[in-house]
Amino acid sequence: MSRRARPSKAPLSREVIIETGLRVLDADGLGALTMRRVAQELDTGAASLYVYVANRDDLMAAMLDHVLGSVPEPEGDTWRERLVTLIESTVAVMGRHEGLAVFALGAIPTGANALRLIDRMLGLLAEAGVDDRTNSWAVDLLYLHITASAAEHSASAAARSSESDTVAAAELRLAELPADRYPMVTAMRAELLAGDGDSRAAWALQVLIDGILGTSAG
Amino acid sequence: MSRRARPSKAPLSREVIIETGLRVLDADGLGALTMRRVAQELDTGAASLYVYVANRDDLMAAMLDHVLGSVPEPEGDTWRERLVTLIESTVAVMGRHEGLAVFALGAIPTGANALRLIDRMLGLLAEAGVDDRTNSWAVDLLYLHITASAAEHSASAAARSSESDTVAAAELRLAELPADRYPMVTAMRAELLAGDGDSRAAWALQVLIDGILGTSAG
Repeated sequence: MSRRARPSKAPLSREVIIETGLRVLDADGLGALTMRRVAQELDTGAASLYVYVANRDDLMAAMLDHVLGSVPEPEGDTWRERLVTLIESTVAVMGRHEGLAVFALGAIPTGANALRLIDRMLGLLAEAGVDDRTNSWAVDLLYLHITASAAEHSASAAARSSESDTVAAAELRLAELPADRYPMVTAMRAELLAGDGDSRAAWALQVLIDGILGTSAG
Repeated sequence: MSRRARPSKAPLSREVIIETGLRVLDADGLGALTMRRVAQELDTGAASLYVYVANRDDLMAAMLDHVLGSVPEPEGDTWRERLVTLIESTVAVMGRHEGLAVFALGAIPTGANALRLIDRMLGLLAEAGVDDRTNSWAVDLLYLHITASAAEHSASAAARSSESDTVAAAELRLAELPADRYPMVTAMRAELLAGDGDSRAAWALQVLIDGILGTSAG
């Protein structure tokens, strides 16, 4: 079949490149995400991509912001419910794709959707009566917590066979520790591994939000 | 010069491999850290390393724990001062080497020094009167915060030319945002970029600690 007889390619655009990048990432992981591979998937040369994206970092940033665009408007009766929902959805959305959260962790958020998310968090904390200085430091802390939680999620999903295997290995490890050097860890061994991830995550958000309400940065 | 006439090599050990790995990481970054490269530095073949380390992940884990061994015993008159000092030193130590914090972020801490650090945090929070369940969830949250803060540090150091360039770029970006879609960010623009990193980090620790004291997991 001649090249001309093949079905026509979708016209190249930043949007198409971002979506293809996400498909490569989700199928084959972060190591496979190269400009060359994305170009291959689009049946073109890497040079053609550079019209739309500056480099791999620019592509990663665009993929991250694209993904953040799917975080729904938060629902709930109170500012606290809406804030918790917003944070939980963002962690879930960001944690679904390997490497995006780690990328977000090192960068000041400047994407349209990341800033929209920050605008929402600022609005909800202002509604709670938090002053501007505290609010601005609070969204920093919350964004760090969101990216870290999402990075933790995607690392567990990517790197480990199963959550239960990991916990079992940790149990064995804690059981062999000498009590004189690790008095607290050995005494609290059962407690340290108890509680599901969702309860721990919900408690952590409560700690952060109550801590913010009680600690003025002024 | 014949091979035999060269100065004799240091005998291979897990310790020597870990230190060489750290030297490679600090000199040439995470991308350069391969088993082959570490073997080259030690003037041996990669196969010889596998007697001492299982693979690159095992090496990274060992490097991380080696580095955590240099966190000093915390000083201070109160449990709070000692806890803050301990967390700050750990962030500094972990953030000094590219990639180690990100590696730590995805793993349950099982290294001897990581567990020692967790033992110390558990002890200090117990001294503060925190119950076992809350304490065990609290060290999870604090360890996540430590690794995220360290990852943020090392990412800024590795990826960006200078902190002031990044802030200047963020200022320009915020200045061009439409106020109708970003009402809070545009209104709080100056505040969002104010305050040095150290003050923000100290405030964040206060938020976490006060939040933990005020929020029982029971």
